[in-house]
Amino acid sequence: MKIPPVKGTRDFYPPDMARRNWIIDGWKKVSLRNGFEEYDGPIFEYLSMYQIKSGQEIVEQLFSLQDRGGRDLAIRPEITPTLARMINQQINALPRPIKWFSVPRLCRAEKPQKGRLREFFQWNLDIVGDGSGQADAEVIFTTLDYLRAVGLTSRDIRAKISSRKLLAAVLANIGIPADKLDPLYAVLDKKPKLPPETFQAMLAEQVPDADQARKILEFMSLNSVERIAELTQADEAVLNAVADLKTVFDVLKWMGVEEYCVFDPGIVRGLAYYTGVVFEIHDIAGELRAICGGGRYDNLLRDFGGPWIPATGMGMGDAVLEILLQEKGLLEAQVPKRQIEHFVVLADPSLLRELYRITAQIRSSGHSANFSYKAGGLSKQLKEAAGQNAQKCVILGQEYAEKKQLVVKDMGTGEQALVDAEQFLASLSS
Amino acid sequence: MKIPPVKGTRDFYPPDMARRNWIIDGWKKVSLRNGFEEYDGPIFEYLSMYQIKSGQEIVEQLFSLQDRGGRDLAIRPEITPTLARMINQQINALPRPIKWFSVPRLCRAEKPQKGRLREFFQWNLDIVGDGSGQADAEVIFTTLDYLRAVGLTSRDIRAKISSRKLLAAVLANIGIPADKLDPLYAVLDKKPKLPPETFQAMLAEQVPDADQARKILEFMSLNSVERIAELTQADEAVLNAVADLKTVFDVLKWMGVEEYCVFDPGIVRGLAYYTGVVFEIHDIAGELRAICGGGRYDNLLRDFGGPWIPATGMGMGDAVLEILLQEKGLLEAQVPKRQIEHFVVLADPSLLRELYRITAQIRSSGHSANFSYKAGGLSKQLKEAAGQNAQKCVILGQEYAEKKQLVVKDMGTGEQALVDAEQFLASLSS
Repeated sequence: MKIPPVKGTRDFYPPDMARRNWIIDGWKKVSLRNGFEEYDGPIFEYLSMYQIKSGQEIVEQLFSLQDRGGRDLAIRPEITPTLARMINQQINALPRPIKWFSVPRLCRAEKPQKGRLREFFQWNLDIVGDGSGQADAEVIFTTLDYLRAVGLTSRDIRAKISSRKLLAAVLANIGIPADKLDPLYAVLDKKPKLPPETFQAMLAEQVPDADQARKILEFMSLNSVERIAELTQADEAVLNAVADLKTVFDVLKWMGVEEYCVFDPGIVRGLAYYTGVVFEIHDIAGELRAICGGGRYDNLLRDFGGPWIPATGMGMGDAVLEILLQEKGLLEAQVPKRQIEHFVVLADPSLLRELYRITAQIRSSGHSANFSYKAGGLSKQLKEAAGQNAQKCVILGQEYAEKKQLVVKDMGTGEQALVDAEQFLASLSS
Repeated sequence: MKIPPVKGTRDFYPPDMARRNWIIDGWKKVSLRNGFEEYDGPIFEYLSMYQIKSGQEIVEQLFSLQDRGGRDLAIRPEITPTLARMINQQINALPRPIKWFSVPRLCRAEKPQKGRLREFFQWNLDIVGDGSGQADAEVIFTTLDYLRAVGLTSRDIRAKISSRKLLAAVLANIGIPADKLDPLYAVLDKKPKLPPETFQAMLAEQVPDADQARKILEFMSLNSVERIAELTQADEAVLNAVADLKTVFDVLKWMGVEEYCVFDPGIVRGLAYYTGVVFEIHDIAGELRAICGGGRYDNLLRDFGGPWIPATGMGMGDAVLEILLQEKGLLEAQVPKRQIEHFVVLADPSLLRELYRITAQIRSSGHSANFSYKAGGLSKQLKEAAGQNAQKCVILGQEYAEKKQLVVKDMGTGEQALVDAEQFLASLSS
């Protein structure tokens, strides 16, 4: 009976696991050094939790199930609803701002394709309790801090930043009624993925007035925050949103990542809950999906039954990132290879008990050790050691039988040294 | 709209996450030093995979779901079937013995109770490709290596070891037909959990012959491998199984963990796929469920469509372990507290840009740093730093404005030092 894995999922054999661990360890290290604390929630939640605010695309991609009491559950497709639930539960006990990160495993029932899997890992950063551009900038800086740490430069990636608040203010200024905004966002979000004519046709459907449509297109093609004011003639709501956005760009500049950041009004984001600054980081070649995306979602905690508390965050999946790092040659060079510190070799079969004793002592002193299960000759054991990328072979032979001495062979240089067994073990413990 | 978490799942707030990380990091570290390599599989598999060999109890507790094509899937309740599938897929490329570990998140739809949750983490160790007692002993040693490393001693825990092969041989010797074994195992497995009379009544149902039942009870109460031979009068199959078991005890003795290990024929294990040595580790007080359990499952890979390859393994959940460590006072003392290395304090508001620059540089040099979002006074910022358990405060004030010097305050001792800002930053990078 042979059963295949489910399509769109991954098996992590040890070399794949080493890559996954290297990526996730990097996410964790950079989160911690930027002052974020780690949290996590359950792999499934009540289905209704994702129906509140996640947006239609995510609801359609839920893996839903029932518990034995017939309650509807779903495997988490994102962790932000869990974050909102958890923070609301302890809202009075948590000092603010809450700077939290997580690396959840998420599942979405989408069609598997390049950079999109049914099961993936996603780095999440969130700052809850601060409404200023400082918090948005910290999220973007931390994200860039990671991407720089793994070797990506401003020649490789660009953080494209805009603001839902700005977009709303500009659209209001142009004369679009508030109740038309949500469907319009969905169209604007698709601009970078569509041929210009297709996009303009879709836009005309939402905005029949040609003058309004032209102004929207004009706004969408701006590449500097400064030029917005000209377009909207000093509308106060617009100026307000521009000021917020300028704070974000200023802090990012002072933090030293200005060259990575650009204003791009084409960034709208699909999720329904964004309210302010939004951003995506893309490969400059533009061949991949967004590496990550995020933004401000000031109403989400209130929508989940809590008080109104401003919040901003980011999510980065592992699939697109891994493709990019692979393409740039940054993966193989940096992911650590498997290594065993000591391979204990039995050159005299009568010393088998000592092999077990010494191996166990090396391990319990905190160092890695292996030995061969096959009662093979010396050269076979050395070959097995090399196959496991052992740094040193610790050989138990005549010298041990006679004088309790071990031959320690450096597998890199080939050099051998004779050492007293107990001294060797004692040196490992210290 | 307030939605609760699903019963039997856990929210990991940062202090809970610190405990979980400490446990899992310990599992990983000990696995690696014992020569195991990490792997993982998907969170769900085809439902049928768990119907092959997991046993009735697990099948009843599956969280099942369907993908959009209507295929039946299940969230993994254990990872051994995934391991078997993965190894079979690459059986010719993997050097043996295969020593693998994993720390999967697992879900079982059981009634939540002390030490049993619907979602938990389980440390898995497996050695595939070696049929000798050495491999069983390595699995048990590695498990004990972890439990000793976190501070449990032979006064706290006991590894109870037996053998399915031995049990089968003894039962055959007593005259139980082979087709009666599976239901009988299920009864024998319950012995430690039942009052003697209840157990004897259940046994009598399976084994109506009083003499046979008496012999089974006699075997089940043995506490030394040596006495088995007397009971069964040198039956060859029994002697064979005893020899295997003796190898395991011998290797464990040479590895230095003899005092933790005891022969206990009451260990049968619930899972359907065990074929040889089986073991469980229990708290000596006997107040908790088994901390872990495992054994040899030589037929599983063949049952999953691969070749016949011997295998042995172990699984340890986090829930019982955490309760035991908590009770023994080993948790709070060892789980690291949150700490921030540097809290950058703004004593002169005109230096805000420098606050951002210095914070960003500390972080990118690999050290953790935070700052206050609130434009509060010096004492408020120091209080916020203390709340985050900052080791040092880096104060930007008059000294910086005049001479580019930082006041570095050690939050433990209260001592302050004046240092050149660029030298300070350079020292962090080196």
